[in-house]
Amino acid sequence: MFSRVQTPCLILDRKKFDRNIQRLKSVTKASDLVIRPHLKTAKSRDVARISASVFGHRATVSTLKEIEQLIECGITDFLYSVSIVPRKLDRIAALLSTGCKVHVTVDNEKTASDLSRYCEEAGVKIPAIIELDLDGHRAGVNPSDHATLRAIGEILHEAGLLSGVMSHAGESYGLSNNQALLDCADDEAVRALQAAETLRKAGFECNVVSIGSTPTALVGRAHDGITELRAGVFMFFDLVQAGVGICSINDIALSVLTSVIGKNPDTGALIVDAGWMALSRDRGTANQAVDYGYGQVCLKDGTVLEDVIVTGAQQEHGIIQVRKGSVAKLPDVEPGDLLRILPNHACATASAHDRYHVISDRDNDIEIWERFGGW
Amino acid sequence: MFSRVQTPCLILDRKKFDRNIQRLKSVTKASDLVIRPHLKTAKSRDVARISASVFGHRATVSTLKEIEQLIECGITDFLYSVSIVPRKLDRIAALLSTGCKVHVTVDNEKTASDLSRYCEEAGVKIPAIIELDLDGHRAGVNPSDHATLRAIGEILHEAGLLSGVMSHAGESYGLSNNQALLDCADDEAVRALQAAETLRKAGFECNVVSIGSTPTALVGRAHDGITELRAGVFMFFDLVQAGVGICSINDIALSVLTSVIGKNPDTGALIVDAGWMALSRDRGTANQAVDYGYGQVCLKDGTVLEDVIVTGAQQEHGIIQVRKGSVAKLPDVEPGDLLRILPNHACATASAHDRYHVISDRDNDIEIWERFGGW
Repeated sequence: MFSRVQTPCLILDRKKFDRNIQRLKSVTKASDLVIRPHLKTAKSRDVARISASVFGHRATVSTLKEIEQLIECGITDFLYSVSIVPRKLDRIAALLSTGCKVHVTVDNEKTASDLSRYCEEAGVKIPAIIELDLDGHRAGVNPSDHATLRAIGEILHEAGLLSGVMSHAGESYGLSNNQALLDCADDEAVRALQAAETLRKAGFECNVVSIGSTPTALVGRAHDGITELRAGVFMFFDLVQAGVGICSINDIALSVLTSVIGKNPDTGALIVDAGWMALSRDRGTANQAVDYGYGQVCLKDGTVLEDVIVTGAQQEHGIIQVRKGSVAKLPDVEPGDLLRILPNHACATASAHDRYHVISDRDNDIEIWERFGGW
Repeated sequence: MFSRVQTPCLILDRKKFDRNIQRLKSVTKASDLVIRPHLKTAKSRDVARISASVFGHRATVSTLKEIEQLIECGITDFLYSVSIVPRKLDRIAALLSTGCKVHVTVDNEKTASDLSRYCEEAGVKIPAIIELDLDGHRAGVNPSDHATLRAIGEILHEAGLLSGVMSHAGESYGLSNNQALLDCADDEAVRALQAAETLRKAGFECNVVSIGSTPTALVGRAHDGITELRAGVFMFFDLVQAGVGICSINDIALSVLTSVIGKNPDTGALIVDAGWMALSRDRGTANQAVDYGYGQVCLKDGTVLEDVIVTGAQQEHGIIQVRKGSVAKLPDVEPGDLLRILPNHACATASAHDRYHVISDRDNDIEIWERFGGW
């Protein structure tokens, strides 16, 4: 199948990808919860078209480039989930003029004022979502900080821009059992609903109450009042998500195809042409129960080689060894042979590549889906 | 100066870049040593043209894409420094037909035989360099393994492809004092010369004896018999190289411009729009005497803010705090203001961007130099 492919390159298993998409879809079958998939993992027009056909016209993005690239793929309603700053507003105004809707996120009064002033001066409406901080680690307003919520809400409400609130249960990536995930999902929803209530009590509209992360979305808790669910990595999955317990290793749809380029006679290691440039420097499994180094090694047909991992990575060299303490053996391969590597973190590994080589069970043809990067 | 620039983006300080280039040039002024700069860090046609004008027509590359992109920039003699495999040889043969020269690297008999057979069948000559392994960590033949050296040498010699040997003092990146660097540079040269001698004693030609890494190249040791010097990151430098002691922080020519997008009221952290997507996941200073987290923070004019570092990075969010134990203060900035971040590892950070915004003292204009990625 891979006779004409150059290495290293990114492989997407279409069957697993489709199965993963359907899994999220099935979570919301019985409810009227809207799914707003995060397209930052895929960054692909082909994936956006599939997303639009399955989940509808809403998407979450992490860059304005994603909106600019995806406006002709059936997505017409975007949530740009990184706090806005004034220098990006002209680009958003230009996007609005193409007929799409762009929600921005805000977590402080200064930005709320800047946004309101811009919209008034430019004569545009850019709806704003107040970002909530659930774990104290990143951006967002603490949902218990009623005063700040009301202050931001008032500025946006006065300008006719307040659309709702959003929370992201980022701490779910650090969990590893189902009860903890259920508790985390409940907490995410309850605190988002609290914040919405704070705004409504102050007399402001709050139509959108958006929550989500792949693990908390997939555990499928239902909460009245939550209007939409966000998730991104669910379509590909990765070793970190397997470590969280929300998928199995065999659900991971993304891998890097690599050539064996040598063997180290002293250490027995295999050397491959996928280094950190192809795999990324992400070591997301380092603090999980099972550490996969820079990735889990598979045969070229995708068969997982238990305990065979990428123990080291330089720019264009990967080093494959058996996990310390394991009695497993390295595969019987020679320079020129192919292997595949499952990624720690799909977002990071995919970002190193400019296309997906999409494989399916149906035939030996490889379809190419272009990717884009940048901001 | 940055009023019309979108963030995050990559900034290249032209004055520092030029000074860094001249520094390597001056190392070899008194000798007839040839410099073969590594263009994997820059991946830019503009940089290749400057390299050709200063160092001449030779370059080292880490991907075939680099050759395909740079053949019209004054570079006509390439060393592809990642062990070759058969599936890449058709692309090299196509490159030879454009008139350029491509040396490949080989570290085992199987690959040497595959290369010889390909060249015979295709009627082409692809000169090969035997890669040496100085630290037992990666690819390459141990220079003391005379039998393997001779076996590979014989196959390549018979096919008329043997060009020489190359070593890379990768362990120099782990050093931090000048005497250790001098010893490392001597060791690199002595062992490369030993390997060349082994091949010559066996009756094979060995015209090229190539050594190099930025730290060992810049300490400027001279050794009779060494024909060429390779270095890559020297043109930009980074925090890892500063930690090695081969440059100062003020020599670092590369930085990421970022917008402050928020503040965390509880931790006091600044949140910026440069996450690991813009900075890379590289934590190369983690094991050095001074750990810079995901980067050293500067004011937008480049003034270094001592002990202010990027302590955390998510995909599009960076978290800026004062180093633990320091009495330094965070800069007085608001959402929308700009900061700059010096990278741990220039190769990794640059690879996240598709262009350099080149600034100079001369004027306020920003020149754009495109970058490319991929293989």
